Amino acid sequence: VDDAFGHHELPFGVFSVPGHLDEPRVGVAVGRQILDLAALFGDDVFRQPVLNPFMAQGPPAWAATRRRIGELLDDHVSRVGVTDALVPAAGAQLHLPFEVADFVDFNSSLQHATNAGLILRPGTPPVRDNWRRMPVGYHARTGTVVVSGTPVVRPCGQFVDDGEIVFAPTRKLDVEAEVGFVVGTASRRGFGVATGEFDEHVFGVVLVLDWSARDIQALETVPLGPFLGKSFATTISPWVVPIEALAGARRPAPEQTPKPAKYLEVETPAAFDIRLELSINNSPVSTPSFASMYWTPPQQLAHLTANGAHVRTGDLFASGTVSDEVEFGSLLELSWDGAKPVRLADGGVRGYLADGDEVRLRATAHGTDGSSWYLGSAAGVVTPARHPGDSIGEPVG
Amino acid sequence: VDDAFGHHELPFGVFSVPGHLDEPRVGVAVGRQILDLAALFGDDVFRQPVLNPFMAQGPPAWAATRRRIGELLDDHVSRVGVTDALVPAAGAQLHLPFEVADFVDFNSSLQHATNAGLILRPGTPPVRDNWRRMPVGYHARTGTVVVSGTPVVRPCGQFVDDGEIVFAPTRKLDVEAEVGFVVGTASRRGFGVATGEFDEHVFGVVLVLDWSARDIQALETVPLGPFLGKSFATTISPWVVPIEALAGARRPAPEQTPKPAKYLEVETPAAFDIRLELSINNSPVSTPSFASMYWTPPQQLAHLTANGAHVRTGDLFASGTVSDEVEFGSLLELSWDGAKPVRLADGGVRGYLADGDEVRLRATAHGTDGSSWYLGSAAGVVTPARHPGDSIGEPVG
Repeated sequence: VDDAFGHHELPFGVFSVPGHLDEPRVGVAVGRQILDLAALFGDDVFRQPVLNPFMAQGPPAWAATRRRIGELLDDHVSRVGVTDALVPAAGAQLHLPFEVADFVDFNSSLQHATNAGLILRPGTPPVRDNWRRMPVGYHARTGTVVVSGTPVVRPCGQFVDDGEIVFAPTRKLDVEAEVGFVVGTASRRGFGVATGEFDEHVFGVVLVLDWSARDIQALETVPLGPFLGKSFATTISPWVVPIEALAGARRPAPEQTPKPAKYLEVETPAAFDIRLELSINNSPVSTPSFASMYWTPPQQLAHLTANGAHVRTGDLFASGTVSDEVEFGSLLELSWDGAKPVRLADGGVRGYLADGDEVRLRATAHGTDGSSWYLGSAAGVVTPARHPGDSIGEPVG
Repeated sequence: VDDAFGHHELPFGVFSVPGHLDEPRVGVAVGRQILDLAALFGDDVFRQPVLNPFMAQGPPAWAATRRRIGELLDDHVSRVGVTDALVPAAGAQLHLPFEVADFVDFNSSLQHATNAGLILRPGTPPVRDNWRRMPVGYHARTGTVVVSGTPVVRPCGQFVDDGEIVFAPTRKLDVEAEVGFVVGTASRRGFGVATGEFDEHVFGVVLVLDWSARDIQALETVPLGPFLGKSFATTISPWVVPIEALAGARRPAPEQTPKPAKYLEVETPAAFDIRLELSINNSPVSTPSFASMYWTPPQQLAHLTANGAHVRTGDLFASGTVSDEVEFGSLLELSWDGAKPVRLADGGVRGYLADGDEVRLRATAHGTDGSSWYLGSAAGVVTPARHPGDSIGEPVG
């Protein structure tokens, strides 16, 4: 992993070191090193295999910890003590940074919704009446959220092949580039979270690779939505960048017409200027802008709680595919369902992913003054399907 | 709560007693009493606020515990020692019995799928091509799964009213009567669970009230499926009846045409003869048969893992509305979306639920020899919507 953060992101993660892989604990990435917070502060909240206990402490504790770390790093005297708590990132193992409570995946890019509608439902209006009224989303599987670097096994499932339904390894393995938000502080059961309360609950940001088997998804999706076409794996970046670090990257939300319902109105800058870079086998294939999203994260949080559903520490909600008017965040759109294969730097072409492909998503947030904050990366290599013997490729009709 | 189990179900739950409400622990319901397993066995696995650690121990531990309890209860000498560990159920508080990992809700009744299609999508084939090929399902929210007795607040949401979209308390609050299965032993990541491996993973059965706001659901559901129309609350019964207790209630799966894919084939009896009783304000409104379900629980488990997604301790998967050819398990179907209101014993009529209504689901499993096993009950009272001021009833278009 070649993540190199600066001194201003101070992202939180969970790591272990060789010889002590069974002792994961909380660290902060600084340059190419990891600051061992358990060693530095001696606090039990950092001697944990997940960030959840720290995230549950809330914004004052998050801010105080960031401030203290910043002071220690800046102060040449205290820096000496800090040095003992620094571990080279190169040798460390990074773990899934938090236990996922509930995982909601939204569909908040107008360009992606339009593209998907045109490709998957030709002849009907690509974006339905509900889409501009609310951030449409669905619940996804939490148990298969994995940390960057975990191999992604090509899933089997039922889909239509040459007019008949087969159970076989997917032939349309795709990935969606997304940005995810991690809840630190729970909200109150039965009450919605106002858009202005976003910062009281959301701890930070991760990058999300939402692996998708388009053929499996196509057969199963009506009327209850995506299920096995998505639930085999979702990869997140190992470092959670605190929302506080991204204050300078906030932007006004895009114009929304029609005007959204009152509970979806935003007053403060609700969008984030984040540029993604999606690559396959080190060949960049797309660089979509997260600032282009129609629905913003505070609106997503307000919507998902508008019915009284509360959020809990460890809840993850993701943006849906980030596609802007020129850069698309999925192969479904980039290759137009395989019709226009994507050319890679090594000369290969891809309609969808091949076994052995390594997908990597990187991102950087930008301030209006030229400053920037690295958001890390999420990556996964596609490995061949497991063949459970005679059940592969067999027509089931 | 008027649950009265016999001596053969031996269902597991989590309870606390007055004066010690902060010390929930594992118990087994016997008649109108609770056997305090922490006191009886002195084992830490029972001195827990959830069943998960015990469920994770697997089938040999489950069977040994049941056998030991059965012996103690049957033996008049040991019974004396047991008496000290018995607590009156009347004064005890029952808690959510397990921490829910992932929650999948299926849609496995052909009658329900047909009814819902006829009502919600008139003019199109009520059951789609995919339905007889696989148990269609979706992921639901785990954080709002609540234990029987928890009030259900009428949710607000966006829906179409008189031609315009409003944000208001739902006017179509419904409930679906379902049967849920609780995973005890995790499966291996990347590998499916065969239908014949059901008993190695599934610990027991709960009853499920799947509260549903039909108007909210209708506006949001295409193309990603149910979301806020379902995510505000799901009520489960407090007592988990072990699968082992229901061996005598197993039945052959119904005939399935076309023949399902190999991974969905079942060899052993995969259905359960369970009769549900759904009542509103103590007035029975439906008594559907769970044995009538088209897709069986072992097939649901095989399907949800067919893409390599593993299950974990605490996973819950529910059947979907249980409707047979004559008895329907939701008000959507019973009142045909309000067109034929249901008459209650007190003279009231219901298209959908009114504030103050108490919904209760009970169930009993039946053996071919006339024996039966009580499955407990799940209940909830509907309380009025919370009004967040000016955002109620306001047109958002």
